[in-house]
Amino acid sequence: MKQTIILDMMAADKGAPELVEGVKLFLARNPGEYRLVAVGKQEELQGLKGIAEIIDARDVVPMEAGARDVLRMKESSMMKAIELYETLKADAMISCGGTGAYLSAATLKLKLIPGVERAALIVPMPNAIGKITNVLDIGASNENSAEHLVQFAEMGRLFNQAVYGNKVPRVYVMANGTEDKKGSPESKKALEMLKAMNFPGLQGNIEGRESLSGIADVIVTDGFTGNVYLKTTEGVFKIMSNEIKKIFKRNLFSMIGYLFAKKGVKLMQHRWDYRTTGGSMLLGLNGVIVKAHGSSDRVAFSYAMEVGKKLAEANIVDTMKKGFANATSATTSGSTPTSTT
Amino acid sequence: MKQTIILDMMAADKGAPELVEGVKLFLARNPGEYRLVAVGKQEELQGLKGIAEIIDARDVVPMEAGARDVLRMKESSMMKAIELYETLKADAMISCGGTGAYLSAATLKLKLIPGVERAALIVPMPNAIGKITNVLDIGASNENSAEHLVQFAEMGRLFNQAVYGNKVPRVYVMANGTEDKKGSPESKKALEMLKAMNFPGLQGNIEGRESLSGIADVIVTDGFTGNVYLKTTEGVFKIMSNEIKKIFKRNLFSMIGYLFAKKGVKLMQHRWDYRTTGGSMLLGLNGVIVKAHGSSDRVAFSYAMEVGKKLAEANIVDTMKKGFANATSATTSGSTPTSTT
Repeated sequence: MKQTIILDMMAADKGAPELVEGVKLFLARNPGEYRLVAVGKQEELQGLKGIAEIIDARDVVPMEAGARDVLRMKESSMMKAIELYETLKADAMISCGGTGAYLSAATLKLKLIPGVERAALIVPMPNAIGKITNVLDIGASNENSAEHLVQFAEMGRLFNQAVYGNKVPRVYVMANGTEDKKGSPESKKALEMLKAMNFPGLQGNIEGRESLSGIADVIVTDGFTGNVYLKTTEGVFKIMSNEIKKIFKRNLFSMIGYLFAKKGVKLMQHRWDYRTTGGSMLLGLNGVIVKAHGSSDRVAFSYAMEVGKKLAEANIVDTMKKGFANATSATTSGSTPTSTT
Repeated sequence: MKQTIILDMMAADKGAPELVEGVKLFLARNPGEYRLVAVGKQEELQGLKGIAEIIDARDVVPMEAGARDVLRMKESSMMKAIELYETLKADAMISCGGTGAYLSAATLKLKLIPGVERAALIVPMPNAIGKITNVLDIGASNENSAEHLVQFAEMGRLFNQAVYGNKVPRVYVMANGTEDKKGSPESKKALEMLKAMNFPGLQGNIEGRESLSGIADVIVTDGFTGNVYLKTTEGVFKIMSNEIKKIFKRNLFSMIGYLFAKKGVKLMQHRWDYRTTGGSMLLGLNGVIVKAHGSSDRVAFSYAMEVGKKLAEANIVDTMKKGFANATSATTSGSTPTSTT
């Protein structure tokens, strides 16, 4: 079936023409028929002629815009794109816009899946064995109950199955120790609940230290801790990258050393930049709502589109709906819907 | 005045003889008169003859011991050391033992400073400008109220003044965004309270991304988030160290490159290992209770002793007592005691 994908082409740091190249990369890697609808300043989207329908939108939602700001910006590419998602019954949407605004606008327009109490932002983190560890929530909420965490576990599991093809994703709860008795009051209770419902693939608690070692496919945490976690990995990574540069600048010999190691350094920096691993996604909404990083280049944007495509193929929204419909809340039902993949 | 320092010489991964060398390093760097009391298996402490009083203790508290375990182990070096701290009215104590056991035993024996509701574990993190950022709590509690966070700010401020000599330490609250409205419910309320009391040096919220950039002297967070934070930096650092090794193993040329860069790599790895930056400390107790890392080598142990010495010199316990005595709780008093340094 032909997928309809809505593209908010604005708000990327590198500008719309860079994203235009991303769309072409996506098509080169994913042959097939798509209905692509690109929203943004039409003069910047001319490169998509013959590839996508171009919908003109004159406003751009600023990165730091709040919930109220975005809802007022009816002429913005983000709001127009979300409205098109609804009216065209589209399969996926991708935007580089600010998280807060995107979350608010999408939740208001598309609504939460019945039974889901909170949307969650899930991110693909590169790990030490060259695969992906999904972490959620990394900032849709700033506090979460144990029940939310249990719902995140289910959403994360289905996401990981659909996008990365793991049949039984290994799911962990982030905590301050690996023993079951460790954790915040909410994380401890969530682990107990997950155990009681025999949650598939549940491994127990995980510490920050092991989080990217490759043992975990999905890590569940509250939005506050998850956001601190994500930004801390980013900060330490950045510092280490600078330290590596310093190593090579120590003296003439180390500079010569750099000539030999340069390629490896660049490869490493690219591989560990989670911004290049595709989009994150707002889970729990009636829609495939992919968030590409504001600093996305063409490659990152093309992978964000690919995430959207895979999630639509996997019918992730329907799968989640079925799972969460079996009970007033998945947290009390013990329901463990299987993915359609 | 001659300081009395109690040393729990057991429980270090590298063994007591390594710590014996650490004591000698400390003395070489810090000339002066001390009463040193070393507790542990006497046959392993012979190197301290003529330097320290040796108190035999046959048991070692295991790293993973809980609160109840340690209190039963009356013949352990840790319990004996804490008792000696009390009976000798010592100035500082250092142990490499497990955090949970150490915290429980020290709190039970020495009690919290009146007005302090929770002890906090503070850690010195190396930052990008080659200085130290103190983070607390990194795991004494697994949840904290806004009032706790405000008390941590005051304890962290006094600690940073005393150990690192910053007159007005720049204090931040860890959050999921830099704006005042960002944060967990507790961290937001704590920031409000700190602002209302004109807390000296208060800078506002900080994200994980900037936490080690060097802008912060003290970062306050709850024990759960702080523990995830600390272990995440450790995990990412470890992964990056391995990645650097991989870069150099790519081919013959990069291996040659390593010969030129080796020294810089080792220097960097050492500098960024927070275990080598001295001890963390249990703040809020009636005592200078320094926690050296279980993996401490002689250098790390010598710096942990130095932290103890500096805190005792600064009369940090008295300073905290005065501050917290001015009100039923520092959180409602707005009291901002000045350090004696």
